[in-house]
Amino acid sequence: MNIRFYNARILTETMDITEGELWVRGNTICYIGDGEDVSSVCKEPGDVILWDREIDVKRNLLMPGFKNAHTHSAMTFLRSMADDLPLQEWLNEQVFPNEAKLKGEEAYIFAKIAIMEYLTSGITSAFDMYIYPKEVIQACVDCGFRIVQVSGLNNFTSSLEELEEQYVTYNDYHELCSYKLGFHAEYTTDKKLLEGLAGLSEKYHAPVYTHNSETKREVEECRQRYGKSPTQLFEEMGLYRYGGGGYHCIWFDDEDIDIFAKRNLSVVTNPASNLKLASGIAPLKKMQEAGINLAIGTDGPASNNCLDMFREMFLVTGLAKLREHDAAVMDANDVLYMATTGGAKAMGLSDCDCLAVGKKADLFLMDLMQPNMQPEHNLTKNLVYSGSKQNVKLTMVNGKILYEDGQFFISEEPQEIYKKANEIVSRMK
Amino acid sequence: MNIRFYNARILTETMDITEGELWVRGNTICYIGDGEDVSSVCKEPGDVILWDREIDVKRNLLMPGFKNAHTHSAMTFLRSMADDLPLQEWLNEQVFPNEAKLKGEEAYIFAKIAIMEYLTSGITSAFDMYIYPKEVIQACVDCGFRIVQVSGLNNFTSSLEELEEQYVTYNDYHELCSYKLGFHAEYTTDKKLLEGLAGLSEKYHAPVYTHNSETKREVEECRQRYGKSPTQLFEEMGLYRYGGGGYHCIWFDDEDIDIFAKRNLSVVTNPASNLKLASGIAPLKKMQEAGINLAIGTDGPASNNCLDMFREMFLVTGLAKLREHDAAVMDANDVLYMATTGGAKAMGLSDCDCLAVGKKADLFLMDLMQPNMQPEHNLTKNLVYSGSKQNVKLTMVNGKILYEDGQFFISEEPQEIYKKANEIVSRMK
Repeated sequence: MNIRFYNARILTETMDITEGELWVRGNTICYIGDGEDVSSVCKEPGDVILWDREIDVKRNLLMPGFKNAHTHSAMTFLRSMADDLPLQEWLNEQVFPNEAKLKGEEAYIFAKIAIMEYLTSGITSAFDMYIYPKEVIQACVDCGFRIVQVSGLNNFTSSLEELEEQYVTYNDYHELCSYKLGFHAEYTTDKKLLEGLAGLSEKYHAPVYTHNSETKREVEECRQRYGKSPTQLFEEMGLYRYGGGGYHCIWFDDEDIDIFAKRNLSVVTNPASNLKLASGIAPLKKMQEAGINLAIGTDGPASNNCLDMFREMFLVTGLAKLREHDAAVMDANDVLYMATTGGAKAMGLSDCDCLAVGKKADLFLMDLMQPNMQPEHNLTKNLVYSGSKQNVKLTMVNGKILYEDGQFFISEEPQEIYKKANEIVSRMK
Repeated sequence: MNIRFYNARILTETMDITEGELWVRGNTICYIGDGEDVSSVCKEPGDVILWDREIDVKRNLLMPGFKNAHTHSAMTFLRSMADDLPLQEWLNEQVFPNEAKLKGEEAYIFAKIAIMEYLTSGITSAFDMYIYPKEVIQACVDCGFRIVQVSGLNNFTSSLEELEEQYVTYNDYHELCSYKLGFHAEYTTDKKLLEGLAGLSEKYHAPVYTHNSETKREVEECRQRYGKSPTQLFEEMGLYRYGGGGYHCIWFDDEDIDIFAKRNLSVVTNPASNLKLASGIAPLKKMQEAGINLAIGTDGPASNNCLDMFREMFLVTGLAKLREHDAAVMDANDVLYMATTGGAKAMGLSDCDCLAVGKKADLFLMDLMQPNMQPEHNLTKNLVYSGSKQNVKLTMVNGKILYEDGQFFISEEPQEIYKKANEIVSRMK
């Protein structure tokens, strides 16, 4: 499909706003400009692009798609089933027993609900960890959604052999899919498995990701076991030799921050989940000052429960301000960078990290003609502080429109997906 | 207008869900039931109601309108003009100088932007304090929106005489409008004015409201001035003899909480604003345990910047969990009560506090057929943890539909309002 967006405002790499046109040819942005000098695209006199659609953006805003840099998409099956419970009860009496009942083909359905929700929030790709990677990847590919799957290696549900097989398979499976090495967490993965994973990282020169220092107890128990923090342990074991990153990263000390900075690791913060499970507030200001790449994730719908980047963006800046007792920290532009380019960097998606010629067309259209976006003092601050899913008019992944004016253009009818999902949860009860 | 909602799910006073019909006659709910036994409404055989509209709710959810229990609506003029600044700089270099430039007729325009945003978020009434009460009230009345205005008595912009005149005028002005006694804050209102206000409270047997203990510094300075906290000062001065309440109420000690409990005062919490200005987290759990009525406000758009009750609801429970280090505190049902009935109680709106026969028809329709509301394990938890403005399909105030499917039915075209607003802010720069 060739799609011409005209009469647009466009958020650039530098978080500035430019006005003009953005052209999509196939899955790629082929032109951004005033629509007058198009010699970079139409090289010969008489060259024309045949447009499948020409969209008048009416001076609304085209933005790079948000990158949801940490989630467990299929856990929509647990949404609102296990809230307002102490953390251990939540995990041991709700999450684990119910996950044990979930089948792969059911995870496929629930992943689709998450994908739809991502699209309503301008999210065009997700960094997903789950016990059914195959089914989650398939749901994404079937919907046309971009996924970076990360292995959740642990003592109970997976092995190094499976992991390596998946790594090889899904890095050569579909243009919408890639696969990273990862493990669930220090407290669920024994040292032998971690050593094996370090070996795979070495073999493939691959970065490694994991849940890291989400709770105070997790760090204390690791220190009891190994005499050091999770980050220090992973560093010593060689897991960070080729980069990677951590999810949550709340209970970090200065040494942990130094390691992340030195190894060029990404911190993926998950503020809504960290509130709902009473985990704490990540020291993002310190991390930012250390030059660490920051990204934002919703975490899974069992612990958030909303898959909404607008809510997360407000929380990133609001909680940093609260933590530092300073209303000036974590500027809106920095947060917007985290939600887009920072996320892409964490996920290895350098080809769709911003709106520029040659990049994949992963973008969304923000309706500014709504009361929450008015007046127009400052568009990026409006986006971060008062933006909402309600403003998302159109979401495109890899050049295809998957969501527009409240309608989904994925492989299946929403009502069918909801029906199947509710049948499954009825059976589970 | 007579409007019949059928095929509905309806949120009841007890936060349960019932299924059936809800009928609106004029501005009042006249029937809730299965639509079969209608003898309570159509008393004679052959009695029929002529419907202006019959709306198939398609098993979506009718809810009592949210009550925004603390705001400064017209401050949309400052949205995104003054963010990411230290508190004092924000107040002294941005808010006050820009407010000095604002005219009453301009406040009227900006109040309309806020009203529109309220409607998109299912908010049907606002408890508003501002320097231009007359214009804000008029904007609400012209739009058909319900307002409780509270006087913002202070040393600089108003007098007791004006206040009393407004109190008398606006409690007998329009069915959509009422007026409460209030002052801006301890640090902006000298003791003589407060004594005068206590006199008016006594004269009219009227409750009194104010910003209270929003920042640590405010409480410390009050203790330096008077040797006691703001709450203790106001209690001793007789300001709470007829009830009332406080906005923010973050830096409360046990004695403050006791006073609020004893006097049946309401605490209106403003969590997004308290994050963005780095003010702190209110001790809501303790207040709840003391039996204090709790309500939720967005605060004004200069300090939030979003006027969205869904964001506030998530923050109320999330921040309480964080503060208490306990994921079990502040259950979703309690939060929903705060956002509806608790707010109405704080604002003196006992005739539109819930959906019941005889109550004013202030309600909204929540679209559940969206991915963020699926599956349907638990509707109230879905509402509080993953609900969004995107789900608000229709908002009705006093029996009139003011917002439906993204369209506004207020006195003026949105584009006209935005145009005027942007012209004003351009002049201000």
